[in-house]
Amino acid sequence: MGGDHGPSITLPACRAFLAKHPDAELVLVGLPEDIAAAKDWERVTLVPASEVVAMDDSVEVALRRKKDSSLRVAVMQVKATAAVPAKAHACVSAGNTGALMAVARYVLKTVEGIDRPAIAFAMPNQLDGSTTMLDLGANVDCTAEHLLQFAVMGSALVSAVNGQESPTVGLLNIGEELIKGSEVIKQAGELLRAAGDKGLINFRGNVEGNDIFKGTTDIVVCDGFVGNVALKTAEGLASMFANLIKQEFSRNWLTKLVALAALPVLNRFKHRMDHRRYNGAALLGLRGLVFKSHGSADAFAFEVAIKKAYDAARHRLLDRVHDRIAATLDGQPGSVPGKAAPEGTSTTDGSAGTQHRAA
Amino acid sequence: MGGDHGPSITLPACRAFLAKHPDAELVLVGLPEDIAAAKDWERVTLVPASEVVAMDDSVEVALRRKKDSSLRVAVMQVKATAAVPAKAHACVSAGNTGALMAVARYVLKTVEGIDRPAIAFAMPNQLDGSTTMLDLGANVDCTAEHLLQFAVMGSALVSAVNGQESPTVGLLNIGEELIKGSEVIKQAGELLRAAGDKGLINFRGNVEGNDIFKGTTDIVVCDGFVGNVALKTAEGLASMFANLIKQEFSRNWLTKLVALAALPVLNRFKHRMDHRRYNGAALLGLRGLVFKSHGSADAFAFEVAIKKAYDAARHRLLDRVHDRIAATLDGQPGSVPGKAAPEGTSTTDGSAGTQHRAA
Repeated sequence: MGGDHGPSITLPACRAFLAKHPDAELVLVGLPEDIAAAKDWERVTLVPASEVVAMDDSVEVALRRKKDSSLRVAVMQVKATAAVPAKAHACVSAGNTGALMAVARYVLKTVEGIDRPAIAFAMPNQLDGSTTMLDLGANVDCTAEHLLQFAVMGSALVSAVNGQESPTVGLLNIGEELIKGSEVIKQAGELLRAAGDKGLINFRGNVEGNDIFKGTTDIVVCDGFVGNVALKTAEGLASMFANLIKQEFSRNWLTKLVALAALPVLNRFKHRMDHRRYNGAALLGLRGLVFKSHGSADAFAFEVAIKKAYDAARHRLLDRVHDRIAATLDGQPGSVPGKAAPEGTSTTDGSAGTQHRAA
Repeated sequence: MGGDHGPSITLPACRAFLAKHPDAELVLVGLPEDIAAAKDWERVTLVPASEVVAMDDSVEVALRRKKDSSLRVAVMQVKATAAVPAKAHACVSAGNTGALMAVARYVLKTVEGIDRPAIAFAMPNQLDGSTTMLDLGANVDCTAEHLLQFAVMGSALVSAVNGQESPTVGLLNIGEELIKGSEVIKQAGELLRAAGDKGLINFRGNVEGNDIFKGTTDIVVCDGFVGNVALKTAEGLASMFANLIKQEFSRNWLTKLVALAALPVLNRFKHRMDHRRYNGAALLGLRGLVFKSHGSADAFAFEVAIKKAYDAARHRLLDRVHDRIAATLDGQPGSVPGKAAPEGTSTTDGSAGTQHRAA
């Protein structure tokens, strides 16, 4: 039901995803009349919910009042108890970020050793790869210990999704020539360095804002305030760039003619910078996999987010976070290479719960 | 002597600036042999210094050991005492930011009512104007009071340089849908709102990272850590964009041909995004005007920084900061429109001290 467009976007995305992944099953959660269109699809289970969390609903409303919201029911699908295994391996939502995080945290609880879940997102970088940043807004005041937990969880995510067993980690800090970082950042640097020395993470020291796009490290760790500002700043600049290019090429008939000639080049450029290809942020540190799609995602972008959740489930992201955090608590190397091979995908059902619609 | 290139860049910039501003005088500070080329220029005074702060010198070295550095001597030119007026109205340096800030603070002291100076920089925005951000790295741990001081000083800067008597101010915060900001940001919001109600600033509430480039407000206030990360992130993304465009247009002979046809459009685009046109950050809150040029500035960019310092001096930025801060301390409106008219430029000598060279 989620995001700005609801099932008009999420249903086609689910259908396209199912066609490409014959081993996957989807659990669709939503208002019965809105998801009924999928009732005859193969490998689909429909789960009804009686209400929807609106994009402008407060966290309190989502948590306390709308107890049968599609968002909450979708999160419930990935909850496992001692008696009952989870009905799905991962949950995907395009809804209200704050509500999703709060409900997921309340329903699923955090992994032992994790104080606060974090939001991780892969940004495109100059090496034609991606740089995973976390946290992007779940936690505004972080301690050094939180930043260490983010580094460990981010390493689990990148090793699962990109298949790099020992991804590099940088701590986001400010220019060398200035007083380096706050007290929290200095302490975090020490903790990360110590964890690196023990082989728990592959720590490469401080990085700066421009290193995100240079691809200096695979993972960039920061508190949620800084991460959110960096992400939004990048979004704002990208949008300004796109507008200026459009303006300049549509200035007069001559520039429009040039644009026509330049179209294949501009399209290739556009493709490489296409934020839709990167859609899907992971909520890490919970006892269940939850992915957040951008609210304005189109069907293509939402399918990318489902695929991310599917890959994370196939590559046992949940176990990896658990193992790495446990190893960090023990102070022992935690990448556990012997256990790292995917368990095979034949039994995996990548599961997407599409939830609440914008008001 | 400053920046990556020293006098090979700064001297031509000074010459070009003098040619365009017949009422300006420059005081050039540096190693005698390096600035001797300017000895016969009109409206130039040479001031020798016996040493140079290297780009990698620590703040301690700049402050305690190199007491006759070009950087320090240049800052001394804008120091006024009860007995002796300042020799120059503003100082411009392309050197080590940390050293410049520390020396300027030590030599000049802060304005009464200002705890910490801030670095302010105008970023291009989508409205073909600029958004002034501060702080950009001088202060990593800020209180709400510091953020209020930044808002007041930023308002003085924009009113002086852009001629807007009541520039709008936004407080940088994170997405609405998440827990809004840290405790400090919440308190700062209250202080800024109260100052806005008294007419001390034109406060417009919270803004997000993307608002910087949208131009939602004239001024964006944040702590130095966040500001530095946002600036560097934007620099990194801009550089990735430029590289990708270059790569796509130089892919083969056909795309190169298209690039040739698109050259006027690409050049206009490049011009609009040209960071050199925005060179020059103001160090605000000191008892003297100090401007920082990017270390990698070329002659064109360095001239822009001199021009900024010249405009700030002509429009009495120092008095404006002083008046606005005094009004804030009193809790009274402080834009003092009656005193805002420039005092006339005939006696103004925009003064540029070009300092230390990279090691």
